[in-house]
Amino acid sequence: MTVLILTCEEDVTADMVVVHLDAMGVPVVRLDPADLTEGVALSGEYVHGAFRGHLSAGGRLVGISGLRSIWVRRPGTPAVRAAQPSDWLTEESAQALYGMLRGSDARWMNHPDAAGRARHKPWQLRLAQRCGLPVPATIVTTFPQAAREFAERYPDLVVKPVSGAHPQDPPRAVPTSRVEPDTDFAAVAFGPTLLQRRVAKRADIRLTVVGETMLAARKVTGADDEVDVRFAASDASWHPTDVAPRVAAAVLDYLKRAELAYGAFDFAEDGDGTWWFLECNQSGQFGFVEVETGQPIARSIAEWLALPGPEQRASANGANTTVS
Amino acid sequence: MTVLILTCEEDVTADMVVVHLDAMGVPVVRLDPADLTEGVALSGEYVHGAFRGHLSAGGRLVGISGLRSIWVRRPGTPAVRAAQPSDWLTEESAQALYGMLRGSDARWMNHPDAAGRARHKPWQLRLAQRCGLPVPATIVTTFPQAAREFAERYPDLVVKPVSGAHPQDPPRAVPTSRVEPDTDFAAVAFGPTLLQRRVAKRADIRLTVVGETMLAARKVTGADDEVDVRFAASDASWHPTDVAPRVAAAVLDYLKRAELAYGAFDFAEDGDGTWWFLECNQSGQFGFVEVETGQPIARSIAEWLALPGPEQRASANGANTTVS
Repeated sequence: MTVLILTCEEDVTADMVVVHLDAMGVPVVRLDPADLTEGVALSGEYVHGAFRGHLSAGGRLVGISGLRSIWVRRPGTPAVRAAQPSDWLTEESAQALYGMLRGSDARWMNHPDAAGRARHKPWQLRLAQRCGLPVPATIVTTFPQAAREFAERYPDLVVKPVSGAHPQDPPRAVPTSRVEPDTDFAAVAFGPTLLQRRVAKRADIRLTVVGETMLAARKVTGADDEVDVRFAASDASWHPTDVAPRVAAAVLDYLKRAELAYGAFDFAEDGDGTWWFLECNQSGQFGFVEVETGQPIARSIAEWLALPGPEQRASANGANTTVS
Repeated sequence: MTVLILTCEEDVTADMVVVHLDAMGVPVVRLDPADLTEGVALSGEYVHGAFRGHLSAGGRLVGISGLRSIWVRRPGTPAVRAAQPSDWLTEESAQALYGMLRGSDARWMNHPDAAGRARHKPWQLRLAQRCGLPVPATIVTTFPQAAREFAERYPDLVVKPVSGAHPQDPPRAVPTSRVEPDTDFAAVAFGPTLLQRRVAKRADIRLTVVGETMLAARKVTGADDEVDVRFAASDASWHPTDVAPRVAAAVLDYLKRAELAYGAFDFAEDGDGTWWFLECNQSGQFGFVEVETGQPIARSIAEWLALPGPEQRASANGANTTVS
């Protein structure tokens, strides 16, 4: 059975995974939904109570029932590279492609529903609390008075975008930054604001989880008072580190409840060694960590994608008619 | 505990439900996310492992833990009526509002994840098949040759938008229409096309399901050869009708698997009395059916929304820590 990878052409991180799948002899079809309907084609029939569907990309044809897993990496917007692109064509193409794939029994990394839900930062914080992960005191508010009272209780604060929009998207570039002690919170009334107690950290932790495989990396905080590691120049590098059993159990609980097969957790390690949950990115980059630490993240992903598909599982466990 | 209704101001269908909730003495807060941050405000704190959140609308304050249910009716785009609207503000407001609400234990009609999934027409067809509902032979394809072969097997066809986009949205107004016998399918290559065997129908069926309450209405097909009931002028009107036990069981199975609390099913009844599944709209209008048939749809929705909330359920069943 085949692994389907939905991503753009210039995705070198996907290349790293494909190398392992090739070495394992697992068939791979890689396609970018942006290439619908030029280069990528689809067809599905619903006849006599059954479904039979196919995808074609780069001249290769694959049956949808023959997919063992689907990796949603960095797919382009459906049909944007069509000869005559339009919002309508994008919508129709998205519905056709994902509508068919959603009816398959393949395992997803990650399922679109789980991925969409996991992007909600306030939901992440609540789920982390429920799983017993330490979460720095946080407020999300449009009430200036609530922000002021929070700042009195927690004078050392950072402010972040609620949506966790990554600063690499230029129009929404808002890195995490410290809140000055004399800040006037009146502007909070104009848009939801996320304030969080700053963790006096001695290290950043990136914990990449693939299925139940955990790969933790640690980077000592530089002498300068950096806040957002994504923007800081630092001489320190990432090194593999261990995960305390209690954290490991909480993280697996988090991913299970979130229905995620892959998650990249960011923690801040304080002076006592406590890991404070900052976020879990369901599509987090891992190439930089793998390169610096030598941790086999790409191989772990390949191994997860290569696990038996629905037909093999069904023959082992009896019929399986789950719709997801 | 309170019922939260997310909808726009001019939603008379919601008004019908609110009348019943008022009569039942159930507190209601109604707000339009479009009114963030003018008129609608929010605040949520994550401190010491717990969450405490509030919404304010029209001068009323409600605690998020005090919500028994959330009805997502016709909410506006978050913050579009703000003094200085922007895509960024909309994204931040959406994440803040729905991110907090997603962490609550309230029951949803319908949960945003289920609603998003349910909009995929190909997924609907597959799920209907799996639940044992008769589905007219259908193809979704970008292969002209596949379309031609399908048209040879099923010469009497209709074409529909894949996305099921409702014709009331002007820029995407594509009603279901018949395919002429000599159609050239070459254009199928430029965009996914949904072709479906036309059901020679003697009536349209609208089956509205609220929780496990079923309200079916039937409208005899006019003498003219109409295809899309939404556009046809007709003298016939909607009348209540019974649901065969086998259809009822299949429909409840569909909603359970789809995780929907509300669904409006459209069927075409053929000359043998068979109901052919056309679609299930998770946000389908019901006002016109209620007015013509006198069926208590609005009251059924009010009763579902008024069912005990999470705190009452927890005290009856023990602790409940589900995150959804």
